[in-house]
Amino acid sequence: MPYVDIKVAGTLTREQKAKIAEEITDTLERIAKKPKSYTYITFTEVAGENWAVAGDLLDSD
Amino acid sequence: MPYVDIKVAGTLTREQKAKIAEEITDTLERIAKKPKSYTYITFTEVAGENWAVAGDLLDSD
Amino acid sequence: MPYVDIKVAGTLTREQKAKIAEEITDTLERIAKKPKSYTYITFTEVAGENWAVAGDLLDSD
Amino acid sequence: MPYVDIKVAGTLTREQKAKIAEEITDTLERIAKKPKSYTYITFTEVAGENWAVAGDLLDSD
Amino acid sequence: MPYVDIKVAGTLTREQKAKIAEEITDTLERIAKKPKSYTYITFTEVAGENWAVAGDLLDSD
Amino acid sequence: MPYVDIKVAGTLTREQKAKIAEEITDTLERIAKKPKSYTYITFTEVAGENWAVAGDLLDSD
Repeated sequence: MPYVDIKVAGTLTREQKAKIAEEITDTLERIAKKPKSYTYITFTEVAGENWAVAGDLLDSD
Repeated sequence: MPYVDIKVAGTLTREQKAKIAEEITDTLERIAKKPKSYTYITFTEVAGENWAVAGDLLDSD
Repeated sequence: MPYVDIKVAGTLTREQKAKIAEEITDTLERIAKKPKSYTYITFTEVAGENWAVAGDLLDSD
Repeated sequence: MPYVDIKVAGTLTREQKAKIAEEITDTLERIAKKPKSYTYITFTEVAGENWAVAGDLLDSD
Repeated sequence: MPYVDIKVAGTLTREQKAKIAEEITDTLERIAKKPKSYTYITFTEVAGENWAVAGDLLDSD
Repeated sequence: MPYVDIKVAGTLTREQKAKIAEEITDTLERIAKKPKSYTYITFTEVAGENWAVAGDLLDSD
């Protein structure tokens, strides 16, 4: 029963999300022996204004 | 002090969210003895393109 | 595909968790039409030292 | 390696988010000795329809 | 700046976690062009008593 | 109604957590006009074996 939440700054294309989901689900099956149907993955695309590193929003100049 | 985060694939109507929040808050009061005013609930509605099960995005054909 | 994460301050008995999971899964089936087998629920029991309200840890005097 | 997720009901201006990120990153450096570059902060602005307290959605009358 | 949180029912060995982290970080670099050093991954191992599917705790008989 | 979740690699002392909670609650009151009593903060201390950066667990040699 893995649940994986992936937060990224910016956006991903549908194709990128499809490929990432496929690979991570495969990784969890091969390495952790989790049946593919058990794995839920969610993507959250975060605007630069809503993500800070080192105290600065990512859309800062 | 319960904090409950509910992620659903797709959307819910306002009426569904109101009823779900009411019932879960009641459940936590009856079963866990948490005063209703202590319970925070957030809903996150996730597009099919952002939720994968078994390695496939939910909006896949 | 609901995923529900429940954080509570302090602990719950196994019986409380079983009953809460049963009721919330039922709520999501009745109100949101989510098949029971789709619903994942996790519980996180948080020590008073790790939860603050109004700026004070819950285990403060 | 702190990761801080801040959920607020309603919205914040970019200026509020920039200042909050700056202060929290500073707090974690001063108090917890975490280098500023290690700290990731994300903001999630939650509509009143998606946040309930005491069993009522925040946009209830 | 990806942040990935992996919740699994039960436990993983250190070797499993090391390999999963390596593969997911590689996936995000190849597919999403995220530099490896940007990716934070956390693992949360959840006891069967704290994870329910279909309304039943996973350690139920 | 802010809810803040702070994940740190390693541990914090109770004194560090108390001071961090106090400062963040104050920040949210001053900058975002959130009454102190509305702010919930949780701390999650993550073992090095459960946190990876750049594909390596933090307790790697």
